[in-house]
Amino acid sequence: MRAEIISIGTELLLGHIVNTNAAFLSRKLAEIGIDVYHQTTVGDNPERLEEAVKKAALRCDIVIASGGLGPTIDDITIPAIAKLIKRRLILNRAILKDVKSYFLSKKVKFPKESVRQAYIPQGVKWIKNNVGTAPGIITDYLGKKLILLPGPPREIGPMFENDITPYLEKLRGRGWVTLSRSIKTTGLAESQVNGIVKDLLALKPPTTVGIYATLRQVELKIMSKQKNMKAARREISKIERKIRSRLKDRIFGYDDDTLEGAAGKLLAEKRLTIATAESCTGGLLASRITDINGSSDYFLMGAITYSNASKVEVLGIPAELIRWHGAVSEPVALAMAKLVRLKAGADVGVGITGIAGPAGGTNKKPVGLVYIALATSGKTAVNEYLFKGTRKEVKFQATQAALDLIRRNV
Amino acid sequence: MRAEIISIGTELLLGHIVNTNAAFLSRKLAEIGIDVYHQTTVGDNPERLEEAVKKAALRCDIVIASGGLGPTIDDITIPAIAKLIKRRLILNRAILKDVKSYFLSKKVKFPKESVRQAYIPQGVKWIKNNVGTAPGIITDYLGKKLILLPGPPREIGPMFENDITPYLEKLRGRGWVTLSRSIKTTGLAESQVNGIVKDLLALKPPTTVGIYATLRQVELKIMSKQKNMKAARREISKIERKIRSRLKDRIFGYDDDTLEGAAGKLLAEKRLTIATAESCTGGLLASRITDINGSSDYFLMGAITYSNASKVEVLGIPAELIRWHGAVSEPVALAMAKLVRLKAGADVGVGITGIAGPAGGTNKKPVGLVYIALATSGKTAVNEYLFKGTRKEVKFQATQAALDLIRRNV
Repeated sequence: MRAEIISIGTELLLGHIVNTNAAFLSRKLAEIGIDVYHQTTVGDNPERLEEAVKKAALRCDIVIASGGLGPTIDDITIPAIAKLIKRRLILNRAILKDVKSYFLSKKVKFPKESVRQAYIPQGVKWIKNNVGTAPGIITDYLGKKLILLPGPPREIGPMFENDITPYLEKLRGRGWVTLSRSIKTTGLAESQVNGIVKDLLALKPPTTVGIYATLRQVELKIMSKQKNMKAARREISKIERKIRSRLKDRIFGYDDDTLEGAAGKLLAEKRLTIATAESCTGGLLASRITDINGSSDYFLMGAITYSNASKVEVLGIPAELIRWHGAVSEPVALAMAKLVRLKAGADVGVGITGIAGPAGGTNKKPVGLVYIALATSGKTAVNEYLFKGTRKEVKFQATQAALDLIRRNV
Repeated sequence: MRAEIISIGTELLLGHIVNTNAAFLSRKLAEIGIDVYHQTTVGDNPERLEEAVKKAALRCDIVIASGGLGPTIDDITIPAIAKLIKRRLILNRAILKDVKSYFLSKKVKFPKESVRQAYIPQGVKWIKNNVGTAPGIITDYLGKKLILLPGPPREIGPMFENDITPYLEKLRGRGWVTLSRSIKTTGLAESQVNGIVKDLLALKPPTTVGIYATLRQVELKIMSKQKNMKAARREISKIERKIRSRLKDRIFGYDDDTLEGAAGKLLAEKRLTIATAESCTGGLLASRITDINGSSDYFLMGAITYSNASKVEVLGIPAELIRWHGAVSEPVALAMAKLVRLKAGADVGVGITGIAGPAGGTNKKPVGLVYIALATSGKTAVNEYLFKGTRKEVKFQATQAALDLIRRNV
């Protein structure tokens, strides 16, 4: 079974927004074993939309088009499709009620033009939008299934997962399924991970392994297309076991796991509390830690001691220590970790000091030089790093390294 | 003059990566006045690539294809195109030398398979890749221009800007140019901005205005396609003046400006220093402020007082104040702003306290309730907000509001 994705929106053709919907839909379709061979983007233009839908319907089984379902005159998807499938647009009272109650719940006056969103082609199946106003549409065209979805990512996501996935799974029947599993590592370069799993990266379908690197994070994605879920799970497990035995504790999580989530989970499980003292990362470490639901159970406080004076004043770092070694030094990172731990009465203290750039580097202490320290009641650790990239990239990599240090030492 | 973009890569069809190249290329083409009506994505499959290129060449003047130029056997773009344009692949010694010196500069042994990247179709124009190994290719096909570019965003960016843009500008001749200008606002909802500039949003080409909303930020983008730069500048200025006179101080910047940049610029210009005390935002405000180059000139320190104890211990907030009003309250936000200002010896202090969710809300104090206060030597201000969305969205919106408060009060 094969699907094709059509993204509709002049803002995509102008490059004003990046098309995340195509990636989202493709990933979801792959997960339920439906192949995608083409993605197409057209503007809010009835002729080019009709042509794209026609072309897609001729070469695949399911056409999924997203965007252009809004209330304004520029949103042409519904009238263009009605014309294509030769159905009249009729007012659907149930949809109108939904749209009206949506605005009521937002305490916003019902905008007259939104009545347009309650007009759908006669006789089609429609899907309620639980987070917006435009309903989804399912209809037949040239003997194929044509599915229209709203454009905003926060609307298409829930609608696809709640309604379209079960619909497509039923349509697909007991056919082939594709299962995937991501294994996430940190602390090794892409080329190092590559060397360790080279044989697996060369695997051919039905089971393959891909490698994806981001800042201080390398992900291995296993995909397997099999006759049933059980076979897919078995194949994935087989490869996963191999990868785990080779990459061991470099692995911090799977699928949607994050480093801040992995570190937080360990702290919560061990009932440990943490406090952070940051200089060059400017609060990004604390912000990532507190992105996790329930982090108030273990995160007590953070000090962002950007100026030298604040390092002395807030944390009580001896001024001489900064004078002797410089603010960007191992002893200062260690003192930050120890002192913020004591100040907060926390089990774990983390200290980060470095040069985020682009200015402020010297020959001896270049941009990207960062010291990260960790202190617990029993031990201390401190590492030196040299990160490459922009100011924001240096900040982010430093927090990746700090979260890894937490994960490996608590 | 019209162009079409073809993105090549099975990883795009699997949804493993988001297609940022299509948006980048579309934006750049719009800037030099070349229209894009279609974007297409195909996998690393010779037949489907050939079909897509053929179709594109029939309906536009310039076909730009990116991806699949790597050294592995999966990278099929060059052989598929050579077959399509009926040219032999020949080894280009100059490219081979470039590829070899690339690896030399990285202190990496030359990988044998990379010799593949030095084979190009006979007689085509090629473009040196200054940040990677795959050269770009320009050739003719069906009387149209066919341009092949590497897939990695960090390679396609410099190559397009340095080589393809001047090439296309010359090709286009002294024709039409498109200029754009973004005007960025905060503090008004999309529907409010919509109401204020409704007449401008209805403008028809050659000069149009688009509206784009993100979290607590609404952007108006003016685009004008004219016979020359001067005319385009004049048209844009005319509309920009209208928008400025209507949206006034809701506008915080233009084009690539950010709220943290706008707030930082004001602080730097007025030689003021700032300190922050954050609870629910967990350091995100300080992190955004310190994302800006040179922010160490004005940002002195931040306190992330997540636990009640740390509010008392670090900032010296009276325990009774928290007991009487609750940690999420106007008086506590104000005390945080005032006390962190004094502690840091800063000109401006900011305090944020709220409930980021998803847990922790009550009927009286729901998830999303945030108090943000600002203190200077002469005045104080405090606002109550109710943000919607996930934990991370609430955090981000709170920092948007805080940066706006700084911008409007210093």
